[in-house]
Amino acid sequence: MQTTLISVNGDRLNQTLSQLAAIGQLSAGGVCRLAYSAEDLQARQQVQTWMQDAGMTVRIDAAGNMIGRYPGRLELPALATGSHIDTVPTGGRYDGALGVLAGLEVVRSLHDQRIQLRHPLEVIVFTDEEGGMIGSKAMAGTAPAQAAEYRRPDGSDIQDCLRQIGGDWSQLHQARRTSAEIAAYVELHVEQGGILEAEDKQIGIVEGIVSLHRCHITVIGRPNHAGTTPMHRRRDAMVAAAQVVTALNDIAVHTPGGQVATIGYFNISPNAANIIPGRVEMEADIRDLSEPHIEALIAQLQAKITAIATATQTEITLERGMTIKPTLASPAIQAAIAQVCDQLQLSSCSMPSRAIHDAQEIGRFTEMGMIFIPSIAGVSHAEDEYSSPDQCIQGATVLLQTLLQLDTLM
Amino acid sequence: MQTTLISVNGDRLNQTLSQLAAIGQLSAGGVCRLAYSAEDLQARQQVQTWMQDAGMTVRIDAAGNMIGRYPGRLELPALATGSHIDTVPTGGRYDGALGVLAGLEVVRSLHDQRIQLRHPLEVIVFTDEEGGMIGSKAMAGTAPAQAAEYRRPDGSDIQDCLRQIGGDWSQLHQARRTSAEIAAYVELHVEQGGILEAEDKQIGIVEGIVSLHRCHITVIGRPNHAGTTPMHRRRDAMVAAAQVVTALNDIAVHTPGGQVATIGYFNISPNAANIIPGRVEMEADIRDLSEPHIEALIAQLQAKITAIATATQTEITLERGMTIKPTLASPAIQAAIAQVCDQLQLSSCSMPSRAIHDAQEIGRFTEMGMIFIPSIAGVSHAEDEYSSPDQCIQGATVLLQTLLQLDTLM
Repeated sequence: MQTTLISVNGDRLNQTLSQLAAIGQLSAGGVCRLAYSAEDLQARQQVQTWMQDAGMTVRIDAAGNMIGRYPGRLELPALATGSHIDTVPTGGRYDGALGVLAGLEVVRSLHDQRIQLRHPLEVIVFTDEEGGMIGSKAMAGTAPAQAAEYRRPDGSDIQDCLRQIGGDWSQLHQARRTSAEIAAYVELHVEQGGILEAEDKQIGIVEGIVSLHRCHITVIGRPNHAGTTPMHRRRDAMVAAAQVVTALNDIAVHTPGGQVATIGYFNISPNAANIIPGRVEMEADIRDLSEPHIEALIAQLQAKITAIATATQTEITLERGMTIKPTLASPAIQAAIAQVCDQLQLSSCSMPSRAIHDAQEIGRFTEMGMIFIPSIAGVSHAEDEYSSPDQCIQGATVLLQTLLQLDTLM
Repeated sequence: MQTTLISVNGDRLNQTLSQLAAIGQLSAGGVCRLAYSAEDLQARQQVQTWMQDAGMTVRIDAAGNMIGRYPGRLELPALATGSHIDTVPTGGRYDGALGVLAGLEVVRSLHDQRIQLRHPLEVIVFTDEEGGMIGSKAMAGTAPAQAAEYRRPDGSDIQDCLRQIGGDWSQLHQARRTSAEIAAYVELHVEQGGILEAEDKQIGIVEGIVSLHRCHITVIGRPNHAGTTPMHRRRDAMVAAAQVVTALNDIAVHTPGGQVATIGYFNISPNAANIIPGRVEMEADIRDLSEPHIEALIAQLQAKITAIATATQTEITLERGMTIKPTLASPAIQAAIAQVCDQLQLSSCSMPSRAIHDAQEIGRFTEMGMIFIPSIAGVSHAEDEYSSPDQCIQGATVLLQTLLQLDTLM
């Protein structure tokens, strides 16, 4: 084991995080580096320079992914790490950036000591994680064929977007990778859930990225005058919808398991104080590592909905919507991360990732693992997203040691 | 009693209802006569002609109210009836129009038989009932002083509006009436609630027009990622708001009394399927004849809200909003209507009006009563608003006989 022979430069890592955060910094303290924006282009240019200075060759694939490659001693498939540097409109300094810059720091540390692994090592900056994951999807071969499906909120065309960052929509198939090229992918990310903080653990070992199922629920009642309609003659869509919200929450809270369920979207008609609502549309979001478990939760919800419709004299329909399949993390990578945490005396726990990550797509064609570090109060996609310098260093250290382990195992 | 000596001409009444409905008739079957529109002006002109033909003198007051006056035998304060002929954008044929045209028919019937009452008899077309009740409010002296408070959805200025129909905003105080001028006001209207139909009664004797209290309820939770936030760490404003909706509905359904309560308006933030709602604003509408009873209902709701806030770890505030005071109907007029129904062998029941009417304002300065006839399924403000020709004739007959009774009593 090389565990004690090499370490990351923690100060350099945190300094680099600050340097990247300065690109697109908002006066209120957050960061805005929307994919394909001038800030994103500037950040990509900066990361490319850092990669080259660390002894990597850098190429941009057809999906605009920036792939820095540090040579290995043998002709083997690469080990890979990375994440994204684009942000939401008011993002933080760590979501995505940490995974890229910790990967960079791993290579810098190897390069400083003139160490090459057996495997080539790739650090990948995936294109537009926040806006549609075209980068990792193209790599996994899961990107839809139609450019229109990637139209951004500002109306921009994905073909133009990719051209700006050196990609080429018409050659997207060339971005496809396989397990013959990438033997394993490990991504470091902030947890975004507050679980590590609450449980007082230093490292989260991701078991997989959950499946997400959306259900579109429509309640049809009878709109009527809020004054003249007696209580017993109402078919109040809002009263029924409220019971649906309560039912789904009760199911998610009381069913054994790690599922989460949310009704975050509501559309009420006519939505006037003096009219009994005639129609409510809701979007339910249900996530768990197990799809059969999600199906069982939806079956429970459907039974409740039928009872609520009868009791409130409304019609309630549940239509299935968007589905994302789960991606399980490689048991070998999970075991490697756990062993590294033990050796480094870092407390850890296994957990699902209930957020979407590029690792989800990469895990569709090769061995995948993720390392989480705590984020304060689970806040992300916001200016007060925060992980401490020590936590960032711990994460980068675990990433380095895990890659070293995998280098010997694979 | 003159009950048997005189009757309305039912065919003429229904024919006149059809003639007025032709002005502003929509191709789908409803009626659109927005106050101050060309259709409203045309309808006003038509009603004025009908009034004059029935022996009435017609004047327009400063608020644009059209007041037809049929002379009495004695120098007494007037008896009055009426309603409005403006409609909502897709209104029906009966709401408002019936009250005006039944009043017209009463005078036509008297005029046919060359009968004068002891009292002068006024038939009043109130200005813009649907859009702000400037007509009846000016007559009661309850109109706010600021023209801006009457700005219509289309942005038009009340001063311009009144000028178009012969009114004069600057002289609005001259529209004020007192009980020395109007001894009693009786309005015939369709019920709009479906209660008479459900109870199989022909006539509703209105006990009063309910008080309306609005409460603005704000739930503040913590917006967060719908995937990464475990169920037990959530402060979901939507889950709390759903419990508030259920609590208010339960209070209104289970508390003894005739109250109604509705949450018809909801504003959710951020309202995205993948984000736990951080804030929900709701508008509650609570109506009853008794203000102390409404206060007791709101106290029950406040207690529930406090418990819900604790259970859901949210902050919930209830702010008091718009209040309309109840207007009780005159016991003498209620008794007169009941006696007329007995004599005519029409089934009747006493009931509150939970909708707003011009009678509410007129009742603030003189004796007021209202007569309801059934409307099918309680539908109003819609093309399928319907009361049968016989029901309209019964209502007009009760109006005539009640006015005859009051003429002898007052």
